[in-house]
Amino acid sequence: MINFSEKLHHRWKSNNTLLCVGLDTDLEKIPGSVREEKYPIFSFNKAIIDTTHDLVCAYKPQIAFYSAFGAENQLEMTLQYIRATYPEIPVILDSKRGDIGSTAEMYAIEAFDRYKADAVTVNPYMGGDTLEPFLSRADKGIIVLCKTSNPGSGEIQSILTDDGEEIYKKVAYLSQNRWNLNNNVCLVVGGTYPDELATVRELAPDIPILVPGVGAQGASIKAIVQSGMTDDHAGLIINSSRSVIYASGESDFAEAAGGAAERIRDEINQYR
Amino acid sequence: MINFSEKLHHRWKSNNTLLCVGLDTDLEKIPGSVREEKYPIFSFNKAIIDTTHDLVCAYKPQIAFYSAFGAENQLEMTLQYIRATYPEIPVILDSKRGDIGSTAEMYAIEAFDRYKADAVTVNPYMGGDTLEPFLSRADKGIIVLCKTSNPGSGEIQSILTDDGEEIYKKVAYLSQNRWNLNNNVCLVVGGTYPDELATVRELAPDIPILVPGVGAQGASIKAIVQSGMTDDHAGLIINSSRSVIYASGESDFAEAAGGAAERIRDEINQYR
Repeated sequence: MINFSEKLHHRWKSNNTLLCVGLDTDLEKIPGSVREEKYPIFSFNKAIIDTTHDLVCAYKPQIAFYSAFGAENQLEMTLQYIRATYPEIPVILDSKRGDIGSTAEMYAIEAFDRYKADAVTVNPYMGGDTLEPFLSRADKGIIVLCKTSNPGSGEIQSILTDDGEEIYKKVAYLSQNRWNLNNNVCLVVGGTYPDELATVRELAPDIPILVPGVGAQGASIKAIVQSGMTDDHAGLIINSSRSVIYASGESDFAEAAGGAAERIRDEINQYR
Repeated sequence: MINFSEKLHHRWKSNNTLLCVGLDTDLEKIPGSVREEKYPIFSFNKAIIDTTHDLVCAYKPQIAFYSAFGAENQLEMTLQYIRATYPEIPVILDSKRGDIGSTAEMYAIEAFDRYKADAVTVNPYMGGDTLEPFLSRADKGIIVLCKTSNPGSGEIQSILTDDGEEIYKKVAYLSQNRWNLNNNVCLVVGGTYPDELATVRELAPDIPILVPGVGAQGASIKAIVQSGMTDDHAGLIINSSRSVIYASGESDFAEAAGGAAERIRDEINQYR
């Protein structure tokens, strides 16, 4: 069985891309013609996937956009479609889970057995023991929130500790040195914070970093690539959601998404 | 419209109880006869609710136990049943959500519009701006993780900051002084940490505190009540899940749950 890390590394090379497309599909933002289909979110996703699959190293559906409206079945259909049609592309379930052991077990089942995702995002606030049910799935990617892309992320994450380091650095340190026994830990660092991205890259030289914030949130691709690359000019999963999937609100949305994805991939590669 | 806080305060008084029953219903642990029903999780919950409703100040279903197996419909049925049959009992959706604004909006829709919960648990790691879509729902309860009940909770939460205070104290301070503009913030402090519970109670004199850890996790009820009560001898939502709902694994499970809930409620009241 090929694991998440192998899939990701293979994909970075084979398709020469660090771009991840976020499938945060909002019913209110998809074209009217698609909205009238039986499974509108899935139909939209399928069309986007078909025009972007060559350009991505991963897909990242955000579960809240499905669970808010009872559309879990369309999330299942989306992952099923990717597995069946483009099995070499890893899928990251973005659910930012975190809970005590007996509940975390259930969330691991949700991500890996129900949805059959290759990786999942998790929240470290409750401590490493709560991540254990995820971390023990050695073939999966466990992507730990470190420094997030939102404007207020510093409120907790940048609090200085008594040894003069910010909390997010502690999380990077723990991820690198304590939680990564199965070599399956990745980190989240928002592209809106390139200095912190460089710091995390120093603390965790080889860990793949998922970088949200490109596009709608305004992060600089140049700064991300220069701050976050590993020595082998990879190491990044640079996510864009809205600026790809809503590149056009008309019937050409899928082609427009393909065009947007290509431009972002090329811009990323320009700085590698 | 009566809001979460009013419902909770009313319930504390009218039924003289601080006990919350956690509906963390695991298919593998429910009696065989119930397991064969069409909606086994809902049937189990309904029976438990019918024998415990007089004894509780709230119910708290843990969403992972439903989403792991695609049983969201049975979670909906459970909340619907409580609303229809015992409308005075508030329901806390335990989902520990947290994400950037546009996604947090979706999670607020999940909790409050899809499931129609009265309150939801949230994770503060990403900062107050990510809690805003929850906090702005003034009629709902927003229950912020502060110091959780698990053995490893100190790994992040008890890191000392440069002014000599632990992170969980910062979260308590922010909850009390910055995030509570709508007077709808509550906190989570594990009953396994009574000293920290006393500290949080000092920092947040009136905020309701949800206390997990009684029963399977081994917290002392006496210590919880003495450390966490408000001046009016309430202020606590003391949760027990497994020791109530699995009090018996046989066909008398519902009556046994009623008996277990009564004993815990009485033990709590003994120390108030």
